[in-house]
Amino acid sequence: MNEPAIPSRDGGLVRVRLDVAYDGTDFSGWAPQPDRRTVAGVLAEELTRILGPVDGLTVAGRTDAGVHATGQVCHADVRAAAWAGVRDTVVRRLAGLLPADVRVLAAVEVPVSFDARFGALCRRYEYRVTDAPWGADPLAARYTLAWPRPLDLPSLSAAAAGLVGERDFAAYCKRKEHSTTIRALTRLDWRRAPDGVLVATVEADAFCQAMVRSLVGALLAVGDGRRPVPWPAGLLARTERANEVVVAPPHGLTLVGVRYPADPAGYAERAALTRNRRSPV
Amino acid sequence: MNEPAIPSRDGGLVRVRLDVAYDGTDFSGWAPQPDRRTVAGVLAEELTRILGPVDGLTVAGRTDAGVHATGQVCHADVRAAAWAGVRDTVVRRLAGLLPADVRVLAAVEVPVSFDARFGALCRRYEYRVTDAPWGADPLAARYTLAWPRPLDLPSLSAAAAGLVGERDFAAYCKRKEHSTTIRALTRLDWRRAPDGVLVATVEADAFCQAMVRSLVGALLAVGDGRRPVPWPAGLLARTERANEVVVAPPHGLTLVGVRYPADPAGYAERAALTRNRRSPV
Repeated sequence: MNEPAIPSRDGGLVRVRLDVAYDGTDFSGWAPQPDRRTVAGVLAEELTRILGPVDGLTVAGRTDAGVHATGQVCHADVRAAAWAGVRDTVVRRLAGLLPADVRVLAAVEVPVSFDARFGALCRRYEYRVTDAPWGADPLAARYTLAWPRPLDLPSLSAAAAGLVGERDFAAYCKRKEHSTTIRALTRLDWRRAPDGVLVATVEADAFCQAMVRSLVGALLAVGDGRRPVPWPAGLLARTERANEVVVAPPHGLTLVGVRYPADPAGYAERAALTRNRRSPV
Repeated sequence: MNEPAIPSRDGGLVRVRLDVAYDGTDFSGWAPQPDRRTVAGVLAEELTRILGPVDGLTVAGRTDAGVHATGQVCHADVRAAAWAGVRDTVVRRLAGLLPADVRVLAAVEVPVSFDARFGALCRRYEYRVTDAPWGADPLAARYTLAWPRPLDLPSLSAAAAGLVGERDFAAYCKRKEHSTTIRALTRLDWRRAPDGVLVATVEADAFCQAMVRSLVGALLAVGDGRRPVPWPAGLLARTERANEVVVAPPHGLTLVGVRYPADPAGYAERAALTRNRRSPV
């Protein structure tokens, strides 16, 4: 047995960055789970068909069940020989193989210092919610929450502004052992789109699990008048999850983009920094 | 038996205009059919629940199976007493009763001279098709056709321009006895939207069955280079359906709007004119 089942890293592998979009409705989230249809599971299966054994998919945002993506990013290490044969046709071939609810928008070779997860500078999400009396427009209903009461944009905006900054978001996070709940929330604002839908844009270096939906849930309680404007920011004083915050449903949420250092020379530095910060001693 | 099962027209009925949107994916079109899920069938059932017996729905555009609408219009005659009790809450109540793939955007009382079908000045459709190598974006895949070859916008536009005008569209119509195939096509143009999707806007006084999809099918053959630019207009010389025209799939098509006379005084006149023109002796 001289052949390893999975080629070793130095045995002719290349790192490939994949830009991915999906409709999360019929997926049990990104992360592979036995007997569940997941984005990573479906994607890895078709990649393997074209490129041979794929050494795992490392992803920027491990989206929950029902959450969508238009700008997800992941990377995989694949056999260099297989890659050379398909690099110019892989997007079109995947389009023919993958189901309609997941698409690979681009697949390009990157330096091994590129890490889709730890190398990301920030993730950007959008949450769509409508307060129209008729509910969500049918063609957008899969990715728009219908809210049964009118929402006040100035209240949403004022409450959102109080959450921006490098803060401890323990109130909005599911507690995990040995990991910090401090995050740098660089953007959280609301606008009313031309079609009347309210869209929150949320950007941070990283998010805890269900954090975006917890923030949106707290803001919606302000938007429809059940809570005062300062309430969401006030919860930042807590050191434990705030159980009175209702997590907004997943289907309104879409991961729209991930940003990386413009210069590949910055990949390794960023990844090392992120690994350090996530596990403070 | 002095009570008729359906109230007579002069027995306290009011005419109500309904603006309707739907995702056509899971409907067998607009028109009621036994044992099929249709938009009119689902809508009439819930209207009856709120307003009592509904004397049929008359619609502006009898969309085929799989075709969507954001701006469909229909009318119904309902009992005045029932209407008076719900007129201010009917949209919100229907939102709670109807399935997510059909919505009533507005419901207002109109003069009995308003006729959603014969009173319409024009119908406007949009057809969305993408030639991106990865196919249709997942969140728009239900209403966007994925085309496997690149499409040339200038060719599409030039070919489309040759079809505009009052012409005999026999080549693009399913022949029906005793009805004309002459239509006034007032607009047919293409643009590339910011997301890269090609969108055709098609407007006419009225359309024969599958006419929009036949026009789009002929234009796509020009757009990907299989047919010359003058070919679609050349087919207008035919007096029978052109079987070499491939009807484009329904899911790319959406009825986006219907226009009526601005002044209700024009309703009756328009309706009489339309009835006349549709059935030339």
